[in-house]
Amino acid sequence: MTVPVTTNGINGVSGKHNVKTSHPNPSLQVTADHQIKMVEAPVEEPGPGDVLLHIKATGICGSDIHFWKAGRIGSLVVEGDCILGHEGAGVVLKCGEGVTDLKPGDRVAVEPGVPCEKCFLCREGRYNLCEDVAFAGVYPYAGTVQRYKVHPAKWLYKLPDNITWAEAALLEPLSVVLHGVKTGGLSLGKPALICGAGPIGLIALAAARASGAHPIVITDLEPKRLAFARDFVPGCITYQVDRTLSSEENAQAVRLLYGNTEYSAPSTVLECTGVESSIILGTFAVRRGGVVCVIGVGRPVMNNLPFMHISLAEIDLRFINRYRDTWPAGINCLSGGILDLKKLVTHEYPLEEALEAMNLCSDLSKGSIKVQIVDNVDAEIVS
Amino acid sequence: MTVPVTTNGINGVSGKHNVKTSHPNPSLQVTADHQIKMVEAPVEEPGPGDVLLHIKATGICGSDIHFWKAGRIGSLVVEGDCILGHEGAGVVLKCGEGVTDLKPGDRVAVEPGVPCEKCFLCREGRYNLCEDVAFAGVYPYAGTVQRYKVHPAKWLYKLPDNITWAEAALLEPLSVVLHGVKTGGLSLGKPALICGAGPIGLIALAAARASGAHPIVITDLEPKRLAFARDFVPGCITYQVDRTLSSEENAQAVRLLYGNTEYSAPSTVLECTGVESSIILGTFAVRRGGVVCVIGVGRPVMNNLPFMHISLAEIDLRFINRYRDTWPAGINCLSGGILDLKKLVTHEYPLEEALEAMNLCSDLSKGSIKVQIVDNVDAEIVS
Amino acid sequence: MTVPVTTNGINGVSGKHNVKTSHPNPSLQVTADHQIKMVEAPVEEPGPGDVLLHIKATGICGSDIHFWKAGRIGSLVVEGDCILGHEGAGVVLKCGEGVTDLKPGDRVAVEPGVPCEKCFLCREGRYNLCEDVAFAGVYPYAGTVQRYKVHPAKWLYKLPDNITWAEAALLEPLSVVLHGVKTGGLSLGKPALICGAGPIGLIALAAARASGAHPIVITDLEPKRLAFARDFVPGCITYQVDRTLSSEENAQAVRLLYGNTEYSAPSTVLECTGVESSIILGTFAVRRGGVVCVIGVGRPVMNNLPFMHISLAEIDLRFINRYRDTWPAGINCLSGGILDLKKLVTHEYPLEEALEAMNLCSDLSKGSIKVQIVDNVDAEIVS
Amino acid sequence: MTVPVTTNGINGVSGKHNVKTSHPNPSLQVTADHQIKMVEAPVEEPGPGDVLLHIKATGICGSDIHFWKAGRIGSLVVEGDCILGHEGAGVVLKCGEGVTDLKPGDRVAVEPGVPCEKCFLCREGRYNLCEDVAFAGVYPYAGTVQRYKVHPAKWLYKLPDNITWAEAALLEPLSVVLHGVKTGGLSLGKPALICGAGPIGLIALAAARASGAHPIVITDLEPKRLAFARDFVPGCITYQVDRTLSSEENAQAVRLLYGNTEYSAPSTVLECTGVESSIILGTFAVRRGGVVCVIGVGRPVMNNLPFMHISLAEIDLRFINRYRDTWPAGINCLSGGILDLKKLVTHEYPLEEALEAMNLCSDLSKGSIKVQIVDNVDAEIVS
Repeated sequence: MTVPVTTNGINGVSGKHNVKTSHPNPSLQVTADHQIKMVEAPVEEPGPGDVLLHIKATGICGSDIHFWKAGRIGSLVVEGDCILGHEGAGVVLKCGEGVTDLKPGDRVAVEPGVPCEKCFLCREGRYNLCEDVAFAGVYPYAGTVQRYKVHPAKWLYKLPDNITWAEAALLEPLSVVLHGVKTGGLSLGKPALICGAGPIGLIALAAARASGAHPIVITDLEPKRLAFARDFVPGCITYQVDRTLSSEENAQAVRLLYGNTEYSAPSTVLECTGVESSIILGTFAVRRGGVVCVIGVGRPVMNNLPFMHISLAEIDLRFINRYRDTWPAGINCLSGGILDLKKLVTHEYPLEEALEAMNLCSDLSKGSIKVQIVDNVDAEIVS
Repeated sequence: MTVPVTTNGINGVSGKHNVKTSHPNPSLQVTADHQIKMVEAPVEEPGPGDVLLHIKATGICGSDIHFWKAGRIGSLVVEGDCILGHEGAGVVLKCGEGVTDLKPGDRVAVEPGVPCEKCFLCREGRYNLCEDVAFAGVYPYAGTVQRYKVHPAKWLYKLPDNITWAEAALLEPLSVVLHGVKTGGLSLGKPALICGAGPIGLIALAAARASGAHPIVITDLEPKRLAFARDFVPGCITYQVDRTLSSEENAQAVRLLYGNTEYSAPSTVLECTGVESSIILGTFAVRRGGVVCVIGVGRPVMNNLPFMHISLAEIDLRFINRYRDTWPAGINCLSGGILDLKKLVTHEYPLEEALEAMNLCSDLSKGSIKVQIVDNVDAEIVS
Repeated sequence: MTVPVTTNGINGVSGKHNVKTSHPNPSLQVTADHQIKMVEAPVEEPGPGDVLLHIKATGICGSDIHFWKAGRIGSLVVEGDCILGHEGAGVVLKCGEGVTDLKPGDRVAVEPGVPCEKCFLCREGRYNLCEDVAFAGVYPYAGTVQRYKVHPAKWLYKLPDNITWAEAALLEPLSVVLHGVKTGGLSLGKPALICGAGPIGLIALAAARASGAHPIVITDLEPKRLAFARDFVPGCITYQVDRTLSSEENAQAVRLLYGNTEYSAPSTVLECTGVESSIILGTFAVRRGGVVCVIGVGRPVMNNLPFMHISLAEIDLRFINRYRDTWPAGINCLSGGILDLKKLVTHEYPLEEALEAMNLCSDLSKGSIKVQIVDNVDAEIVS
Repeated sequence: MTVPVTTNGINGVSGKHNVKTSHPNPSLQVTADHQIKMVEAPVEEPGPGDVLLHIKATGICGSDIHFWKAGRIGSLVVEGDCILGHEGAGVVLKCGEGVTDLKPGDRVAVEPGVPCEKCFLCREGRYNLCEDVAFAGVYPYAGTVQRYKVHPAKWLYKLPDNITWAEAALLEPLSVVLHGVKTGGLSLGKPALICGAGPIGLIALAAARASGAHPIVITDLEPKRLAFARDFVPGCITYQVDRTLSSEENAQAVRLLYGNTEYSAPSTVLECTGVESSIILGTFAVRRGGVVCVIGVGRPVMNNLPFMHISLAEIDLRFINRYRDTWPAGINCLSGGILDLKKLVTHEYPLEEALEAMNLCSDLSKGSIKVQIVDNVDAEIVS
């Protein structure tokens, strides 16, 4: 594990200047040949504007599994060893030069994508669309499944005491949902449809309820997931997608649950699967003039889009790429009791057992929702 | 009480063709010389597109008191006798020709303003701005504080069984709030400020909570109202406006409650008093680039607006006039348990005691929040 | 030709009560078995709210040809004889009861779609999405390619003297573009791309220029159309789509014309063909975070949508269905010299030669842009 | 003149490290005791990310006169000597470390406000609202009325050859207008009102025309300015405000020019004076549901706002603070011939005569529109 790209170098800082720490720094790495492994990683001195963190919890995301199994997501290719993990939170151990807003001991959540801050997209505030984002956990930028990670202070958010580490590590997927909710435009008393009851869909369900949307239907193929949804957000209506029906037929069945008039149909669909048939279902279920916000990311190309229907119904098809400006609102939601996402964490593994965590996640039959890797040692810097 | 303008003639139908009913039709009327009185009103045949209702509940609004005491609100002048009441709900007794969506026995809420449906404002969907609205309870259009009222079927909304009459009569003030919330743009996890803890302010408080806004501060001069607010929406923060401070100083104190940074300041202010000092407080409390939505209506002219501050902070000052397209969402909110407004109804009076209800409302020392006039008789048409 | 559906009965008025006129009423009709024919149609008395017009000009639209050749567009099927034409303008001959805003002699443009005005879509101002629109020229509603047509006064717009009949008959396609421009969000000094140089694309080009968009590129397969575009809107840049390249490659070539940076790429694409490859071109040409507004309507189903690209670039795919609230702005544009569309009318035929006009339009080799049917007789009512 | 605050130190760089230049560096400075003077200023080495410019042209703005005569604008106080000028453009002489997008000889326009890029307002793209902007020409940051100025490369924009220096120096006021136009929402064929025919009002007039607004009325007290407006944008309608009438009466007279119906009234008002009576005129002139965008900045406090009228008409009162993301669009407008603003420059003075330029501007009787200070010497760095 000496390849620089697997170090903490999110800003191009090399791995030379190691910091002496109380504990070793095991890290979960994905390799170019579709392996995962635990490797001891170097610990770096935080440079100007950077902070050295002790990562306390990281959630595993479907994309981590995808990088492992497929080696790529679109144009993002695992070309060498890389530390995984982008749903992280931890404690500040040491601040680099010029860091004034944080101090050792602060509990923080990590926004993993660090944009260039030079391009017009950054300037106009759409930094999630920046073409030069250094994203923790995506090759060649080191992620958070390790004990000691350097990250720019600007992209860390202080946590109130009443947010647990498990919750803090959910702020990243919550951010995806908050960006989707903002883009899709939920509103008080308006019907909404959530497609997909995976982690993102379930958070979207909770967020839709917390935004006052009503009624809310959530779809999935799996009855177990729908049962989880009903328990997670009482009052939601679940619909098990019938594989023997067309997307349009499934959509008609969904519409019946709202009352079967054009008016009662959902004004917003939050599509959380990225699967073609589910997106099509959404376009047939949404009311005329409604919005389908595609949060899920799927295959490179999509077919069978009911083009004329979408035109005649004047449906707005919106797409999102991650999130921007979402951590503070997410923290408010968790801290203020607006959202309670703790039930989503079905499994926790210590850092040293990160490989087991990955194996569990990759086995869909295990029914995990969100698996997190936690680290409860008293990690310190040894001066 | 023979002047046509006090009849049920919201569409100009005269009072000639009476319907024979099981009970008399007592009505609460305001007069041009600032009196209120109970008068037996005629019962009309519903014309084409109209419906004859048995009104079961009507909430009294501050504007009803204002019409009584001041004889006018802006350009709306009480020039003759007029039946008051615009927060009404009731049972369908008889449908006029061409009414297909309703039938006798249906429980409905009344949208009191009937726009012209001819002007460009109606055409583009901003019918609340129509210059030719026939508004029930505003001279010369008969209101809902009577037993039998004719109203166009198009402006009635069917009620699910789980909405009580008391709740149904709250749909009108809730509509004001829903339009304000939509205009002001609350969102999940973003801080909000509610100015004023009267009925509209309290509904706005509940709506802000139901929309996921957090933290929420509500202001008022009266500690009793703030205590009611804390009980009504647990978790809200209350601020008693200090008359000895300037609006800017009060705003600074409000900002402290959010954390005293520009970022933590409320992104949306829902101003529900219409009082100059309170609006100014709102403009100083809101974050840079935020929105102050003025829901309250006050004096014809406003002074002391901190113009340069508003410019430099690029604050968007939005104003609303009633509501549009809000009943269905309001019904969803109440029926789905998204909002529970029942506690707001502090007093109920039978129709025959409407004068007492008005007297109670006009006496601020009595601490009423929402007073409703209800009618529990078995009113029928005698064929 | 006595089937009621081919009469002027846009509001269901039967053809019984004929009006005596100075001239016969030849009409261009399409049949269920894919024929077109000229037929003498009855002239009706205008009912309440209706107006009897002498149609002076009607433009032929691609959809007219499509109804003729294919017998349907989506769910709209030619089930019997129907008078074609929806791009019309004429003179008021007689007003029905209750019409106060118009009088005989007034010159008016026809908005062909008459919505129900009862549903929630009409109420909220999105009347173009009403599911019960009576659309002139779409079976079973009589169109404007006849001499005498009845139409509701509410959906007629008075014309200033400085708008010619040819221009007035362009207000309908201009309306499509105005709705697209509003939906797509052009703005001053921002680059725009127009896909397709047919009539709608050319009007979109002129509208983009009149909105201050810059630079503007317009694409097409046909060099002649692009030459027309350059002449029509000097300063626009034309790009001939290369059939041997992929949509993505064509998009890269288009981007070069803007300067080949992400920033210089068009922020709005107005897609005016409805052709799959052109829409895909648009999604690859638009800047990250931009809008592709699909104005053209194409096949029922679309394939090969570059889904992951659209997600990562957070592209907003908007679709429109006709227009709403557009005639007054269109009239302002033509009357005020903001748009000069007269050059688009390449051919004019008298009403009696409407079949020749249709034949010309259907022959793409003839290079017509907009063909209009005009009627210069002194049509009168014979009392 | 050795106080650091009057040096080129926009980023806190001190004036120590002088660069040897071919010519001296005369600068126009305002003093804390309301004087203006010409002073030789030091020339600094550009630091990392900075560029040393030869300023070729600077426009004088009303705020420059205000800083001189009043010593402050709101909270911005002239506490010591400061070089004026924020409407500047020039040639790159030397690039500091890390500057890759610019090279000596490049012609650039200067965006004068340099935000902190750390706060949440910068992050979300609303950098014009940043509370820590270093604004060239506002104490203590050196402006552009000098020969040699250092400025961060990130806030410079390359100019195409077909933009003159005079035009380039108009990009700053044009930016104000572009931000106002975007905020106010002009659109094709919709009527607009411009209040005030000073430089900003005249640019707003041209921008409204270039955006396709129609009809456009512009108001002012001065007939000469209105005559200039008619010459500058043919087809606009001018209205001389009558001081003997109330704002509401003047607004009624303005409405007559549009046709005197609610519908024909302007949907957007761009208020470019900041004067109370003019803003009130705007609120009475705008159509119901319209937008009044206040671009002009006036006194700290505003009185007599017709509050109830604004509420009932649901008018959106928007305010702007300078601009954001506007230079590229402005450059497109000028380079592409979308806007021709050259006529606005009524007077030019060489740098050495900057005091005379200021005196001319301060004398309203002289009828200047835009006065610019230009520098045609061959300024070079002497290595």
